[in-house]
Amino acid sequence: MKALVFRGGHLQLDSNWPDPKPGPDEVLIEVETAGICGTDIEICKGYLEYEGVLGHEFVGRVVKGPRELKDKRVVGEINCVCGKCDMCQSGLSNHCRDRQVIGIAGHDGVFAEYVVLPRRNVHVLPDAVGNDEGIFVEPLAAALQIIRQVPIEARDKVIVVGDGRLGLLAVQVLAEQGNKSNVVLLGKHAEKLTFAEKRGIRGILLDDMVLKSQWDVVVDCTGSAEGFAVACQLVRPRGVLVLKSTWAAGAVVDLSPLVINEVKLIGSRCGTFVDAINTLAAEQVVVNGLITSRFKLTEGENAMKKAQEPGQIKVLIDVKD
Amino acid sequence: MKALVFRGGHLQLDSNWPDPKPGPDEVLIEVETAGICGTDIEICKGYLEYEGVLGHEFVGRVVKGPRELKDKRVVGEINCVCGKCDMCQSGLSNHCRDRQVIGIAGHDGVFAEYVVLPRRNVHVLPDAVGNDEGIFVEPLAAALQIIRQVPIEARDKVIVVGDGRLGLLAVQVLAEQGNKSNVVLLGKHAEKLTFAEKRGIRGILLDDMVLKSQWDVVVDCTGSAEGFAVACQLVRPRGVLVLKSTWAAGAVVDLSPLVINEVKLIGSRCGTFVDAINTLAAEQVVVNGLITSRFKLTEGENAMKKAQEPGQIKVLIDVKD
Repeated sequence: MKALVFRGGHLQLDSNWPDPKPGPDEVLIEVETAGICGTDIEICKGYLEYEGVLGHEFVGRVVKGPRELKDKRVVGEINCVCGKCDMCQSGLSNHCRDRQVIGIAGHDGVFAEYVVLPRRNVHVLPDAVGNDEGIFVEPLAAALQIIRQVPIEARDKVIVVGDGRLGLLAVQVLAEQGNKSNVVLLGKHAEKLTFAEKRGIRGILLDDMVLKSQWDVVVDCTGSAEGFAVACQLVRPRGVLVLKSTWAAGAVVDLSPLVINEVKLIGSRCGTFVDAINTLAAEQVVVNGLITSRFKLTEGENAMKKAQEPGQIKVLIDVKD
Repeated sequence: MKALVFRGGHLQLDSNWPDPKPGPDEVLIEVETAGICGTDIEICKGYLEYEGVLGHEFVGRVVKGPRELKDKRVVGEINCVCGKCDMCQSGLSNHCRDRQVIGIAGHDGVFAEYVVLPRRNVHVLPDAVGNDEGIFVEPLAAALQIIRQVPIEARDKVIVVGDGRLGLLAVQVLAEQGNKSNVVLLGKHAEKLTFAEKRGIRGILLDDMVLKSQWDVVVDCTGSAEGFAVACQLVRPRGVLVLKSTWAAGAVVDLSPLVINEVKLIGSRCGTFVDAINTLAAEQVVVNGLITSRFKLTEGENAMKKAQEPGQIKVLIDVKD
């Protein structure tokens, strides 16, 4: 089959990648649409030690699997877990000690014609959620994880730092959960802030921002040391700072403001797919307008380049014509 | 009066430093004994922008003040607050926007014959707590702050990283609060670990430690980027990492393990003096044996040098002969 493979420090289209074969309790899925995420870009920059088929955001159709899934349009959770270790046994299977992560660690990803996933990772997408919306299930689940970890009160002053893909989802989730007039998006791109403003959420350009430690909850979706430093300046004493993005290792960071201000910093990663699917079906979060470019699988290298341009939000790969 | 003053990048004895004069609601205290803290060392290395009399850990006797304090032996809280800002008004006066911090920011410290403090900062020391123990009220309050911010359950596996002054106090507090057999001190100095072991707390040398992410609560008292990296490796997914020490700015730190493991990092600073005084009076924490050297005020520069030697725990300055 055709697949976009990261190997030896390069991303390349391989037209003869072996077709995956489902084992017991696994499902074979024909990938229809895939999305490029910041983690894919980090892998291509060599920040993670992954080699194999790239990609983990997708919508596909089940080709081989249990009867109830046959021909269904599905999405898939990215953590493939053992079910046996101390983490799995204590209900924290997303943190499985032996986990593989699709397209990120030890398991081929979805920038390919076919992918194999454990049955338990697969969720059926309702008709109300199209392929282009379904791509956002994984990042939206990650955004929803914020409010699972940090209860937001209506009185809380909340600011999301970073107007990229994740920031635009996170700010909608937080505005829905808290008091919309207390929720702000801070970014560098006027056109991305406009997306939030159309949904009644105030956007502020970084150049116009007064960096004062007065926000109850700050969510850093920038993925940069510079953005994290801004976030540290905004959080009030005893406030909460949610750190969403995994970073390039070894950034230069001054953590002393967190100690002096007794800040609670909460690392936050993947979330629950069912919540995200329901949220999209109920149209509580809007993803229309977030897709800024689309490419064919054979144009995958160009798609990755495009995804790194400043104006881009979400770049799709139409795997199936 | 005589005072140890940090000015122009150097610490020097000044024999003609002006005597401080108490204003309204202030107390004049004759300093008897003072202690050197890691923050003092940081200031002398130029990491903070403070100039003036150094020092904030002390026991003294009230010379001028309200009748109920006259001639009393006292200790003093280090934050001088305004009582008016949003933080003070919301009960977080330790985070006062206009605060001065004794010997650290905007207020002369205690390595001097006399110091002036706001009345509200001053606490009488009971006879059960001698001068040498009273020196530990401030750092012990900081150690007790940990269990105010993070409730410890008996089942929690707790590890304190760093066997310095603060680590040796923190591990005693945590062993007292949780299940002593689940509490461990990790350090680099066999003789300091022995201090904990004498109190029935297990000590492990860093070289002998298996760095596995399996600890529910990790408390970083090292004050170094290297120590923080160790702490990050020890905390289990969804565990808690308490960061006690303010650092040298701009250390190179990789925060991605905190995101991937969804760790809760809690910055922790000063605590409540009354708790610390009561804990010392009840002998729930032992500080005998933590004092490794003592100097006169006129030997202050040597005292600061001594405090930076590896084998030292707490170095005292006997201000009054």
